[in-house]
Amino acid sequence: MKKLINQPENSLNEMLLGMTKAYPEYLTRLENTNVLIRQNLDGQKVAVVSGGGSGHEPTHAGYIGKGMLDAAVAGDIFTSPTPDQIYEAIKAVDRGKGVLLVVKNYSGDVMNFDMAKELAEMEGIEIEQVIVNDDVAVEDSTFTAGRRGIAGTVLVHKIAGAAVERGWDLQKVKAVAEKSIKRIHSMGMALSPCTVPSAGKPNFTLAEDEVEIGTGIHGEPGTHREKIKTADELTEELFNKIQADEPIKSGEEVALMVNGMGATPLMELYIVNNKVHDLLKSLGTTIHRTFVGEYMTSLEMAGMSLTVLKLDDELKSLLDDPADTPAFKIIN
Amino acid sequence: MKKLINQPENSLNEMLLGMTKAYPEYLTRLENTNVLIRQNLDGQKVAVVSGGGSGHEPTHAGYIGKGMLDAAVAGDIFTSPTPDQIYEAIKAVDRGKGVLLVVKNYSGDVMNFDMAKELAEMEGIEIEQVIVNDDVAVEDSTFTAGRRGIAGTVLVHKIAGAAVERGWDLQKVKAVAEKSIKRIHSMGMALSPCTVPSAGKPNFTLAEDEVEIGTGIHGEPGTHREKIKTADELTEELFNKIQADEPIKSGEEVALMVNGMGATPLMELYIVNNKVHDLLKSLGTTIHRTFVGEYMTSLEMAGMSLTVLKLDDELKSLLDDPADTPAFKIIN
Repeated sequence: MKKLINQPENSLNEMLLGMTKAYPEYLTRLENTNVLIRQNLDGQKVAVVSGGGSGHEPTHAGYIGKGMLDAAVAGDIFTSPTPDQIYEAIKAVDRGKGVLLVVKNYSGDVMNFDMAKELAEMEGIEIEQVIVNDDVAVEDSTFTAGRRGIAGTVLVHKIAGAAVERGWDLQKVKAVAEKSIKRIHSMGMALSPCTVPSAGKPNFTLAEDEVEIGTGIHGEPGTHREKIKTADELTEELFNKIQADEPIKSGEEVALMVNGMGATPLMELYIVNNKVHDLLKSLGTTIHRTFVGEYMTSLEMAGMSLTVLKLDDELKSLLDDPADTPAFKIIN
Repeated sequence: MKKLINQPENSLNEMLLGMTKAYPEYLTRLENTNVLIRQNLDGQKVAVVSGGGSGHEPTHAGYIGKGMLDAAVAGDIFTSPTPDQIYEAIKAVDRGKGVLLVVKNYSGDVMNFDMAKELAEMEGIEIEQVIVNDDVAVEDSTFTAGRRGIAGTVLVHKIAGAAVERGWDLQKVKAVAEKSIKRIHSMGMALSPCTVPSAGKPNFTLAEDEVEIGTGIHGEPGTHREKIKTADELTEELFNKIQADEPIKSGEEVALMVNGMGATPLMELYIVNNKVHDLLKSLGTTIHRTFVGEYMTSLEMAGMSLTVLKLDDELKSLLDDPADTPAFKIIN
């Protein structure tokens, strides 16, 4: 294991320290927790809280700021945060207008966010939850009942955060987040595994000429393994699976995310993007916005995922609203 | 070699296609070239042009936009672009106010940008050049006479681009770019090599427990190899080398960049950032801005570099000016 770390057990804490030192204008740490909250919480607005296991950076704390998240709760690497920490986050950012929890669909996360939600309800905090399950690869998986939540979660942060900035109430913010979730479909693949520091060895193995299709963001098994093919062929394979699940029709407008898993050069993501654009255009689809980069990573795993969000006028407009966070900025 | 590519010889072209498709609002491709230029070149301003070998994405084309570059010329992977392509870029973005070339100090780049500059001068274009040589690791290297230009180049783009937006003339833009270059010092290290697609094999080898200190962004040798140490120890080693070269004194203000080489998880970069902040603070230094991420990569090399820019009031103010490019945004 060759990593830029100190003691593996200190990695989470040192990372959170490093984030707050990098972005003091955006975020601050809630004392004695692994919760980062937005600096200068402004106005009497609904709050949006997300979180989950670490190792997916910049997810989630990189999306704290104007037009996205108010708090992010960090669990240990690939491990759900505990209910008490989630509850601390909720209390810290609630401004009397209620809180929306955005949770990726993993059993541990769903259970712990649920428990935190109950604690908040007992304190009289108005609170709602949405579960992101954008990964079309497999129906149930190692850590999941139902589909997994992956890179599309970032777009849910963006939509919900924009709705909040417009002053919408909790029920309306929740409704539009749920609409976006129904319209977001993703699929990923891996060229190589990653190593959780405390485990000290790779989370799976692949032969030199082999890739795994449908891999999750914790290295969970996908649909199958196959010999490596060209970028165009692999891209088309992922795209076809998304398209089979939720056909994209001529005249529709979409947002596209080409997400790197951690170790994939940006050059390769642009090569993939070139092909996805051609595939979408051949369907008569308009691509309203494209995001290419590392948005939802798996430590140093090599690979990528595609995310397609079918837009309507409302979602398009929310997606275009300004956002100002460390890892996601929209300037109008 | 496990990569998301098609034919290796098509990688550069497909990457440029993928970039223009991702960011049509920012950039467009100059026909029959590997030059990307800014969409909507506005006003009668000085133009800033950079470029170099590909494989360092988002450098340079990711920095095209308001407050940074007007054009980026892409060579093949780790290979200088040719003078004719650089000349095409210059002609395309010159608006009668002159052009500043920002060149990383590699023999091939310096020679080819020089030739392009001469071609432009013969056409009566007012043109100046600055050479970035921020890498304190080694004095001469595989592809360089003098010090190499690495991640600090991105901050030179930022400073020069901000000066242009303020309407400064070419000589004044050049002068402030040169001032910033004198004040930027960087140092990198590698945990693993990378593979240029056309070569098909890694550009160097390291033992399982070994890192290389001072490695260049093309895998050029650094100062030495050593057994891997903790992130804190490695960070201090790089920082001390920068500090020995250009002591940072109490009361000084700096901008800091913690740059990932391509395959290093963001989590590790934040752990490094945590230590650099402590080191700078122990010197009594104020850190005005911190940039953590992949700004100047080496394909899928694992490793990082530190860059320190010593600020004065002018540089601080230019650094804080708005920027809007695909890979670098400053919102005020």
